[in-house]
Amino acid sequence: MKPADAPHVGSVESALGIVGDRWSLLILREVFHGVRRFDDFLRNTGVSRAVLSSRLRTLTGAGLLRREPYREGNARSRAEYRPTRSGVELLPALVALMEWAEEHVEGAARADVLTHRGCGGRVHAHLACDAGHDVTPDEIDARRGGAS
Amino acid sequence: MKPADAPHVGSVESALGIVGDRWSLLILREVFHGVRRFDDFLRNTGVSRAVLSSRLRTLTGAGLLRREPYREGNARSRAEYRPTRSGVELLPALVALMEWAEEHVEGAARADVLTHRGCGGRVHAHLACDAGHDVTPDEIDARRGGAS
Repeated sequence: MKPADAPHVGSVESALGIVGDRWSLLILREVFHGVRRFDDFLRNTGVSRAVLSSRLRTLTGAGLLRREPYREGNARSRAEYRPTRSGVELLPALVALMEWAEEHVEGAARADVLTHRGCGGRVHAHLACDAGHDVTPDEIDARRGGAS
Repeated sequence: MKPADAPHVGSVESALGIVGDRWSLLILREVFHGVRRFDDFLRNTGVSRAVLSSRLRTLTGAGLLRREPYREGNARSRAEYRPTRSGVELLPALVALMEWAEEHVEGAARADVLTHRGCGGRVHAHLACDAGHDVTPDEIDARRGGAS
């Protein structure tokens, strides 16, 4: 099998090309904490204005965030950044990476605590099948995707 | 808040430093498909011997794979690479990224098909709480981790 026949790795790679850098992750984290405005991203992350502009453009261009105009009083119109469905659906991957790092990367600090609003239970990323069973890695049969 | 107070992003970053490159992902994919031996990684991925050696060293050093000696007939002893618990526990993150990319990255090919050996159901990465409820992103309350 040639690398060209290994499509999912290629697509995971493209995903990491979008969200695999420090600042994109920091910005997405803020988005998941409900932050929407340029100056709030700026203050909460410590990123420079230039880098923040660039990353917001990348994340918007890649379809993870969308710009929505707002205006306060007589000030000129500005943009808020809201997660799209694509952005929201990245959350399980980020939670899974965060949990893995917390558990397995030496010196990693505590992960954000996510709780289920309905019941207060701690939220985790995990594997389950369509029939609703929790699945451990050793219970999985894997078939290569794509054309291979 | 300064970046230094955003520990989980830092730890996700370290995770991506280990598994965020093309070849590490290709090798881990092979491991999850049951491949264990140097020459099989070589043939299945198209990676060069030098890069494969280097990535296997990195993944072993980072504790995702462990070397185990084997010997065939009178040949000299060689090493197999087996996933550690840390390596196995990365699977939900890789599945989540793979599924997100398949759904949201333009031009991405089909993901590998994972099925539950017990029941044949398709396996997905998702979010659930300790009480066993499926959780959608809009049902989550997030509290920042670490010291902040």
